[in-house]
Amino acid sequence: MLKELRERVLKANLELPKYKLVTFTWGNVSELDRETGLVAIKPSGVDYDVMTADDIVIVDLQGNRVWGTKKPSSDTPTHLELYRQFPEIGGVVHTHSRHATAWAQAGEDILALGTTQGDYFYGSVPCTRRMTPEEIAGEYELETGKVIVETFRKRNIEPSMVPGVLVHSHGPFTWGKDAFDAVHNSVVLEEVAYMNFVSHQIRPNINSMQQELLDKHYLRKHGKNAYYGQ
Amino acid sequence: MLKELRERVLKANLELPKYKLVTFTWGNVSELDRETGLVAIKPSGVDYDVMTADDIVIVDLQGNRVWGTKKPSSDTPTHLELYRQFPEIGGVVHTHSRHATAWAQAGEDILALGTTQGDYFYGSVPCTRRMTPEEIAGEYELETGKVIVETFRKRNIEPSMVPGVLVHSHGPFTWGKDAFDAVHNSVVLEEVAYMNFVSHQIRPNINSMQQELLDKHYLRKHGKNAYYGQ
Amino acid sequence: MLKELRERVLKANLELPKYKLVTFTWGNVSELDRETGLVAIKPSGVDYDVMTADDIVIVDLQGNRVWGTKKPSSDTPTHLELYRQFPEIGGVVHTHSRHATAWAQAGEDILALGTTQGDYFYGSVPCTRRMTPEEIAGEYELETGKVIVETFRKRNIEPSMVPGVLVHSHGPFTWGKDAFDAVHNSVVLEEVAYMNFVSHQIRPNINSMQQELLDKHYLRKHGKNAYYGQ
Amino acid sequence: MLKELRERVLKANLELPKYKLVTFTWGNVSELDRETGLVAIKPSGVDYDVMTADDIVIVDLQGNRVWGTKKPSSDTPTHLELYRQFPEIGGVVHTHSRHATAWAQAGEDILALGTTQGDYFYGSVPCTRRMTPEEIAGEYELETGKVIVETFRKRNIEPSMVPGVLVHSHGPFTWGKDAFDAVHNSVVLEEVAYMNFVSHQIRPNINSMQQELLDKHYLRKHGKNAYYGQ
Repeated sequence: MLKELRERVLKANLELPKYKLVTFTWGNVSELDRETGLVAIKPSGVDYDVMTADDIVIVDLQGNRVWGTKKPSSDTPTHLELYRQFPEIGGVVHTHSRHATAWAQAGEDILALGTTQGDYFYGSVPCTRRMTPEEIAGEYELETGKVIVETFRKRNIEPSMVPGVLVHSHGPFTWGKDAFDAVHNSVVLEEVAYMNFVSHQIRPNINSMQQELLDKHYLRKHGKNAYYGQ
Repeated sequence: MLKELRERVLKANLELPKYKLVTFTWGNVSELDRETGLVAIKPSGVDYDVMTADDIVIVDLQGNRVWGTKKPSSDTPTHLELYRQFPEIGGVVHTHSRHATAWAQAGEDILALGTTQGDYFYGSVPCTRRMTPEEIAGEYELETGKVIVETFRKRNIEPSMVPGVLVHSHGPFTWGKDAFDAVHNSVVLEEVAYMNFVSHQIRPNINSMQQELLDKHYLRKHGKNAYYGQ
Repeated sequence: MLKELRERVLKANLELPKYKLVTFTWGNVSELDRETGLVAIKPSGVDYDVMTADDIVIVDLQGNRVWGTKKPSSDTPTHLELYRQFPEIGGVVHTHSRHATAWAQAGEDILALGTTQGDYFYGSVPCTRRMTPEEIAGEYELETGKVIVETFRKRNIEPSMVPGVLVHSHGPFTWGKDAFDAVHNSVVLEEVAYMNFVSHQIRPNINSMQQELLDKHYLRKHGKNAYYGQ
Repeated sequence: MLKELRERVLKANLELPKYKLVTFTWGNVSELDRETGLVAIKPSGVDYDVMTADDIVIVDLQGNRVWGTKKPSSDTPTHLELYRQFPEIGGVVHTHSRHATAWAQAGEDILALGTTQGDYFYGSVPCTRRMTPEEIAGEYELETGKVIVETFRKRNIEPSMVPGVLVHSHGPFTWGKDAFDAVHNSVVLEEVAYMNFVSHQIRPNINSMQQELLDKHYLRKHGKNAYYGQ
């Protein structure tokens, strides 16, 4: 069932260790098939080097397992909430990549300081508020998704234009049009997380780049006037 | 004698260079066979790339060599003290991994700032006090074990829930249910040591994460209500 | 057409991932054939691992494509402005290498703190001013070249003696007598960008090295009295 | 002539890129044959990946080339001064390894903060004073050796017990009983340079470790009461 989707999701998961975004099993990738409304996702706690397409689990958008024998990633309810609330996305990634996680631990947004970020993220990558004791004690992984959605709604950020977030005291989630695009955004996020760390060390209290330069770089790669690439 | 144990301990030792936790011979792994009360441990100062299972030494819990021709690691008395005082552990690792060692040199605990640490360590990783001149001049490696045990007793930390320590001006020791689990915890400790360094640079005087979030993450992976993994 | 030039430029582009200067397609190398006045340059947005010499594009110094089917790098007008204004150069490289980019984001020159820099750069690597909204809204990539040239003219820096620059909020460009020399200078720039970051952390408000030592090192490798190498 | 010595020196030079201590040709290793008083040393500016034992140059202690067709490393007079003044050493290494160089640029000693350093260096690794304009304008590479020797004499440091130095605004030199031992010390120096950088970031104004602990660690590996290793 959905063999091609499972093979894609397996391959996208294997990109996480390739790009050095995960240690052990600390990450997961999913992809949504919008036609059937089904999501393929990594199983919980399975090593990347033994994982096969048959370990990938298929769930519906309400979290019911419809194919597979493994338990899906414990972060599945977070992925599903993002798919339900951000209709333009088709892939979700969670990692504990070193520098994005360090910013999440510090509870700080990653400001857009340069064109590396501006080419992919149309502004700061926001950090969520801390979750409440009630949210943590409740359906924690679902609530994690809700606090991400709340962050984007309250701050009027368009998820397709800022395809990632830092969850406070936890780590990054990214998304994209499909699983590979979401992984790509995870790589970029980790890269800018590192660069911005260094820039902040060089110049404490540094501010965001000029809005005009951000506009220029984001829009030369995205939208109807894009002219980057073939 | 205990060939399988020696082969396990060899393999666990070879994971240290694989995970880039050691330079040259700066690390050692042991495992305790609780049935016989015997410990297999790395020989002293032997290169990882020529080490064989026949180089692994077997000692009893009092430090008498009962098998092998090599001298055991000079840190053997520290390992043995941990096995004697922490009855729930079956493997011990010592490394000079870069960031855990940097924190040990600074004499600071590694605070639990995020869920990466909270998934494995139920709170801060403590740093021991400095050793006294008498302890250093005495049975130094045994005293190193004693100061670790003292740290956990005085601060009421349960060793199975915080499976690692920083020895002041020296470096990390970790433990686990067996040698591989102890190596796993060394990898995690080095990872969180790095992330916490970066988080502290971004936000000086940062505090520990919320207790509720720490409880949630530690307990979803450990204990009778755990639901992570297959 | 100019097959040898295209093969050189392909090979020089492939050195960027080899030296870990680029992530994905974030970099480009060109070389000028002074005899014909033609420039070979990387195509826009093509992955390094599938790129062939037939993907390399040939343009004239006014930016007209004279060979190839791909679109040239979007940064082509910047390269061409450098070739037009700096007659001594034959190769240009642009990357988003991590530490040079971090300095560019901070808007700071990279001071010559030691002989590593002094062996290749005869003084600080300058950072340009921010571009104006008009420059950004206009022929942005050409204006990027112009602001680089302005920086060298206003500060009386000889481009052949300081073969690189940081573009504010963007990243580094380097150049050299040919494409490989320009890549070599990119590697050096990234190396000194990292070292100078660390030196600044160790000693805030550090100053440039002594002028005599800079003279000695730069001139033992460059110019008529050089005595380094075979 | 001295083929075995040249092959050793070639092999020791090739360890520099293996341990990631050098970029391009930025490093050199020599070894002294005390019996003949001859020194084998890397040629100047030759790439590591094409270097053969026949490229290694043999010079006498006064710097006369007695075998080989290549020019010896431009740093040869520094190596020779160390061999002449430090009679207990048999190998010398110079690199621009990243963190040792960053400390040299900052002009600071690397304090002994932990046992990693104490196992190999019996105290701080000193940084030389700046060289005078006269020294730089004179026989610069010889004067570099002289300022190293002066640093050890004035500060009463025993070169065999602190087998390395930082040359101000330049980078590290290390030595040892032979070429491989000197390379080993270069690896250690870079490792402690990194760790001490991090420790200083975590705890500004950190002080050296306790003398008793330094004594213990240095002396358990060196001298007549050593008990580390087989």
